Amino acid sequence: MTTTFTPANPDFAARIQRSFARQGFMGFLGAELTRVEPGLVEIQVAFRPELTQQHGFFHAGVVGTLADNCGGYAAFSLLPADASVLTVEYKLNLLAPAAGERLVSTGRVVKPGKSLTICRCEVEVVKDGTAKLCAASQMTLMSLPGKSDRPQD
Amino acid sequence: MTTTFTPANPDFAARIQRSFARQGFMGFLGAELTRVEPGLVEIQVAFRPELTQQHGFFHAGVVGTLADNCGGYAAFSLLPADASVLTVEYKLNLLAPAAGERLVSTGRVVKPGKSLTICRCEVEVVKDGTAKLCAASQMTLMSLPGKSDRPQD
Amino acid sequence: MTTTFTPANPDFAARIQRSFARQGFMGFLGAELTRVEPGLVEIQVAFRPELTQQHGFFHAGVVGTLADNCGGYAAFSLLPADASVLTVEYKLNLLAPAAGERLVSTGRVVKPGKSLTICRCEVEVVKDGTAKLCAASQMTLMSLPGKSDRPQD
Amino acid sequence: MTTTFTPANPDFAARIQRSFARQGFMGFLGAELTRVEPGLVEIQVAFRPELTQQHGFFHAGVVGTLADNCGGYAAFSLLPADASVLTVEYKLNLLAPAAGERLVSTGRVVKPGKSLTICRCEVEVVKDGTAKLCAASQMTLMSLPGKSDRPQD
Repeated sequence: MTTTFTPANPDFAARIQRSFARQGFMGFLGAELTRVEPGLVEIQVAFRPELTQQHGFFHAGVVGTLADNCGGYAAFSLLPADASVLTVEYKLNLLAPAAGERLVSTGRVVKPGKSLTICRCEVEVVKDGTAKLCAASQMTLMSLPGKSDRPQD
Repeated sequence: MTTTFTPANPDFAARIQRSFARQGFMGFLGAELTRVEPGLVEIQVAFRPELTQQHGFFHAGVVGTLADNCGGYAAFSLLPADASVLTVEYKLNLLAPAAGERLVSTGRVVKPGKSLTICRCEVEVVKDGTAKLCAASQMTLMSLPGKSDRPQD
Repeated sequence: MTTTFTPANPDFAARIQRSFARQGFMGFLGAELTRVEPGLVEIQVAFRPELTQQHGFFHAGVVGTLADNCGGYAAFSLLPADASVLTVEYKLNLLAPAAGERLVSTGRVVKPGKSLTICRCEVEVVKDGTAKLCAASQMTLMSLPGKSDRPQD
Repeated sequence: MTTTFTPANPDFAARIQRSFARQGFMGFLGAELTRVEPGLVEIQVAFRPELTQQHGFFHAGVVGTLADNCGGYAAFSLLPADASVLTVEYKLNLLAPAAGERLVSTGRVVKPGKSLTICRCEVEVVKDGTAKLCAASQMTLMSLPGKSDRPQD
């Protein structure tokens, strides 16, 4: 199910980088935007004790945050320059304990649309250099034409 | 759909408080466990610029983290003393921008079970003292009998 | 979380009955529209061997169909007269075997919206006159302004 | 994300065919089991006016039924001979009107497990010989060791 998408906004990659940089939460988590392509975005975060649940693994909230965010930006990559993106909903399955030194989350557009875009994400946890699938998500994003991606003045 | 549940472990509230305190991510977010009853758990977090998305509102990842966590602990409140809890999956709808000074997330058990427990959560955002529903979740939790809630030595 | 909604279209109940009657699948299943209120719709179906899974209980597909449909019509009940309704997505938890003589599915609007409406549904199975919760759903509906609810000529 | 799975039960295909034949609802819909491989099951159904929603397209309930069933059997294909399968929950996005002469639903195992199996499904609608993706699902299945797939005597 690999598809090639043509972005409506040629500046999509720089636009996503600017939006990511405005998300205080990404900086707080130490998350990095590591791949931006039309309809595909990858986000990574390194392990820190501040990101853990009670067993010392990555907290499901961190996994969900990355999945939500890379799916949202994957959808955003295909939107026109005057539109903003909104997460309508997502569903996340946790497949294995997120035990490792790094999370790598990849979001892909399954079905772009003028109003709604559907994405799927996979989150892998890297332990001793080996990646293992630890979460899978399916989500719905909405395009907001004429809505800025920046805070309103 | 209000039901009264009888906890299998009379020490459930103290147990949840200890587990919550072991989650590094909760401390990092500044989240507080504000209500623990049989089958019901409430978690709150105050606004900080570190928790924002690009418009300056609470990040959906923070909203999802609270929803996941209060649902997980609501299920945990009904489990026997020797069992641990695991999030199998959750689905979250974002209903309104999480713009405000505080998030209040409440998780309730819909259907307890020996193996699987189903919960629903609502997240409200409080702005100028007025609470507004901003997210709703439905989730599946699994009981892990004989599995400790602490890190393994 | 009980809310009173004011329907935009005073003719909403008759409109839903006409739409339900146009759904060939509802007649095929023998489903009945048993309750229509602003933001709330109930659909029932009686047991028949044609509606079963391999153990002889109601098939999950029948349960899901009722949940989807009563949520869709609950949203539809609040839409203006010129708008049609579309299911964007739904999530359904199956809580108990649907073993009994009748399914009763109730959909309620959680959050109405100009564009998107969020609903929750519960499905009960009635066995020997006693109702038991067997499924719970959360779903996203979309309003399509200017789109007819009838087949296009 | 294509993986090859080794079935625990060499008789898995015949077992699924027998289970499918016991589902009264599949015969009622006119659904056919068209492909059974380790971790992959395809189900099709031809258009009939009895399967429609109000615009005359396939009803979302039919789409959801096929998605649920092919995901359930995809998981079942990898289970040991003494285990039965149960749908815990599924989430379905409807991507396009299911307007056409045939539905083709394909379920694939994403992550098999001793207790829980995660699947994804895609449903295509075939119109004038051209297939179009109309729904995508992600679901959780549970293995029930020692539980028969037949009705209990």
